[in-house]
Amino acid sequence: MQFTRFARATRCAAALAMTIALAALAAPGAYAQQTQSAPLGRTIATQGSANGVPACISCHGANGEGNAAAGFPRLAGLGAGYFEAQLAAFADGSRENSVMQPLAKNMSANERTAVAQYFSSLSAPPGIRTQDPSDAVPSDSGAWLATRGRWQQDLPACVQCHGPGGAGLGTAFPPLAGQPAAYIEAQLNAWKNGKRPPGPLALMPAVASKLNDADIHAIALYYAQQPQAEANGATAASQPQAATSEHAASFQPPPESAMPDGDFGKSVKLGEQIFRHTGQYAGKFVGNSLTCANCHIDAGRKADSGPLWAAFVSYPAYRSKNGHVNTFAERLQGCFNYSMNGKAPPLGDPVLVALESYSYWLATGAPVGGKVPGRGYPKLPAPAQKADYARGAAVYAQHCALCHGADGQGKNSNGQTVFPPLWGARSFNWGAGMHEVQNAAGFIKANMPLGLGGTLTDQEAWDVATFMDSHERPQDPRFTGSVAQTRAKYHDTPNSLYGTVVNGHLLGSP
Amino acid sequence: MQFTRFARATRCAAALAMTIALAALAAPGAYAQQTQSAPLGRTIATQGSANGVPACISCHGANGEGNAAAGFPRLAGLGAGYFEAQLAAFADGSRENSVMQPLAKNMSANERTAVAQYFSSLSAPPGIRTQDPSDAVPSDSGAWLATRGRWQQDLPACVQCHGPGGAGLGTAFPPLAGQPAAYIEAQLNAWKNGKRPPGPLALMPAVASKLNDADIHAIALYYAQQPQAEANGATAASQPQAATSEHAASFQPPPESAMPDGDFGKSVKLGEQIFRHTGQYAGKFVGNSLTCANCHIDAGRKADSGPLWAAFVSYPAYRSKNGHVNTFAERLQGCFNYSMNGKAPPLGDPVLVALESYSYWLATGAPVGGKVPGRGYPKLPAPAQKADYARGAAVYAQHCALCHGADGQGKNSNGQTVFPPLWGARSFNWGAGMHEVQNAAGFIKANMPLGLGGTLTDQEAWDVATFMDSHERPQDPRFTGSVAQTRAKYHDTPNSLYGTVVNGHLLGSP
Repeated sequence: MQFTRFARATRCAAALAMTIALAALAAPGAYAQQTQSAPLGRTIATQGSANGVPACISCHGANGEGNAAAGFPRLAGLGAGYFEAQLAAFADGSRENSVMQPLAKNMSANERTAVAQYFSSLSAPPGIRTQDPSDAVPSDSGAWLATRGRWQQDLPACVQCHGPGGAGLGTAFPPLAGQPAAYIEAQLNAWKNGKRPPGPLALMPAVASKLNDADIHAIALYYAQQPQAEANGATAASQPQAATSEHAASFQPPPESAMPDGDFGKSVKLGEQIFRHTGQYAGKFVGNSLTCANCHIDAGRKADSGPLWAAFVSYPAYRSKNGHVNTFAERLQGCFNYSMNGKAPPLGDPVLVALESYSYWLATGAPVGGKVPGRGYPKLPAPAQKADYARGAAVYAQHCALCHGADGQGKNSNGQTVFPPLWGARSFNWGAGMHEVQNAAGFIKANMPLGLGGTLTDQEAWDVATFMDSHERPQDPRFTGSVAQTRAKYHDTPNSLYGTVVNGHLLGSP
Repeated sequence: MQFTRFARATRCAAALAMTIALAALAAPGAYAQQTQSAPLGRTIATQGSANGVPACISCHGANGEGNAAAGFPRLAGLGAGYFEAQLAAFADGSRENSVMQPLAKNMSANERTAVAQYFSSLSAPPGIRTQDPSDAVPSDSGAWLATRGRWQQDLPACVQCHGPGGAGLGTAFPPLAGQPAAYIEAQLNAWKNGKRPPGPLALMPAVASKLNDADIHAIALYYAQQPQAEANGATAASQPQAATSEHAASFQPPPESAMPDGDFGKSVKLGEQIFRHTGQYAGKFVGNSLTCANCHIDAGRKADSGPLWAAFVSYPAYRSKNGHVNTFAERLQGCFNYSMNGKAPPLGDPVLVALESYSYWLATGAPVGGKVPGRGYPKLPAPAQKADYARGAAVYAQHCALCHGADGQGKNSNGQTVFPPLWGARSFNWGAGMHEVQNAAGFIKANMPLGLGGTLTDQEAWDVATFMDSHERPQDPRFTGSVAQTRAKYHDTPNSLYGTVVNGHLLGSP
């Protein structure tokens, strides 16, 4: 009975592995012999516990590498915090698994901590990519869902939290790459069916609820194959579900599969790459750690996040920001000067031409000059209470710090930037539109936390936008030499905190 | 009875003027006294003829200035050829007028010639503008019809043949400015109702058939008021008739009345001015006597004549002409380099921004990337017979020389360019798209003669395009130093005559 339930859980009847596991359960004596000569975690992992818990490696492999055939997950290199939380969840029954629940219950809190620390100290097996393939993949494939998401449903890409290559990130986001397909599939189904605790921000139940069986299978296969040869990409088809976005009825850019071939197609594709990997493809024009896609979600496709298809049909236009009519190309230059804190490519530069080509292609069929629903960021009504830094800090800690970090820098433990830095030297500068509170509030309300857009109240969005925009960031390139004068000239609006004093600091001052 | 018919013809019961006229009819004796002492034409004009024709000035004014109240047209400064042809038409009854028919019949051919020469030698009255107002006018006004036409119906503007300000042009196009409203109205009605000979190319019956009563009244009022103070513009409304263009169901750019205000509107308006008066508004970038609107009829609005609304939604695009992806701005630069035989404005120049703004505005509502019907020039099927210079020359003489002149230079008798020069130093250069026969044939078939698009056969269009493009014109700016090499590099197509020998001349050679 237990075997049957276990097999159902992992969707893999792995008789050989079970034989080993059951043999280990029956031989607790091995434990006592070595418990004194090795750290507790290692002992339990390799020999089992005094209380009859079998050696973890019996199922999860001698080096914690997992067992793909059996669907047993890799443990090596998992973050200790995540690992320990899982054992606790098995122990209290909130995470269901007929094999692991009794084992975890049989361990003390101390033992669980020790085992978590042991496995987190082991290296992940070699061969796991930490970069996603840059080649185009079909937009209904596991690879696409994993690396691009499906934003018609506000479904973020796996890599947006689990890190490049799905290699795992911090304590909240475990590795996916190389985990057995059966294991990943079982976990997604568990979240979908309420069989696993929701975890931080309840992100995973939200994600899983938007995946159908084919999606889950495709994603699981994709990550199971990630450590293998690059040529071995998963392309199993998924059936996209009906769009759930607020603007489901609004303009839809063409699918990736419709991207044209030939020389024009190359320019479009290059534009998309620049948009998604700005530092990599247009590094000399970028002065921070952001990409275009950070503020234009789904690579410029998502409504209410400054979609490119809406921008393209809105230029030329007069902008009070610089007091003249701007072409689309000049508008793109503005992004480089301010949002990217860089130096704009000159007009006609292949970078601008490619971005314009990509935007034009995304706008295929959109009416020129049309006020297409979903353009820009939503304009939130003024908040009921005056937006407040302290309330914003609390919202930030609860909803944002998980990814962006308490320091707003979005780095992983290796110091790599994985989430967009929200302030400081590596963020947008004081000339960027996002530094204006109403813009940030609109963006946050519609799009944050990633995949959970619309879940914050308007007040929370205003408050947390105020918090974010109350931090120091790179100088406005139009700086006149005087903060007061620069504020008077460019920032004389309640929506800009530049030149105001927050927590005793004059924002914009060196 | 005769009085009643006359009044109906001119729609103005001018009792006083008639009294004078009838008095003159009754007093032929004045003629004999002076006939020996003055040239014949002057004598008849001022004193009447021996045969009882009264003095012309009795009705048409002492200096042939006409009588606005009575609706008697100005004769002074009319081209002798036109004048003589009208008297002949009255005489043979093909032009109906109950007063003029008996008088003209009563004159010998010699007398008619003499009178025509006399009045053509008199100066037109002062105050007639030779420029059209550059201010925007309502698109349903007489001023608009006179200066812009109504190209949904292939209705050209009056000024396109009658010259700037309607001041008259050559022997075929008499002045309109300052003619009595009643007279103009009567003539348009006469053409509409088959009461006046069709004239060159039967242009005027075609024009008049597209005007309703309100249009005719508005145009007549507009020209009647032309010599007066500039503030005195006519704005009588006309009811546009149903569009008759082949692409009536295709995209329609917004009406002039929808042009936006404010700074963006200024850029749009400037773009329109540049487009229509390119040498005046962007002179430093222009190297010939053409305007953008010469090849993009109705200021870039007309389908099948390279309409701007279709062009705007078609870029960025790869062009084999220069081997890379061109933005719309770069495409505009190409027009300056080749069609305008000039030097392109740099990217970002206000001239390009204004032209892009104007194009964008004209494209309002057009689908981005859409293959909108009417874009570019029509692609004609290959001609049944190989296109032929000699046949083309005959087509040209019959259908084109009227406006463009036998020498293709489009000048009036004062040496001013009034119609686009088709070849020679003041025309497009060897790099322009129009130098390729299939482009020229498509344009001509759809648009030429002006207002009579579609009347030439495909074969005639191919032949006359071949004739036009067999003439010398400014060098291709990409000239390598060798005609043969330049042909091999840029013109190696049966559609380009560059580098081929026509009538013993190597086209493209100095």
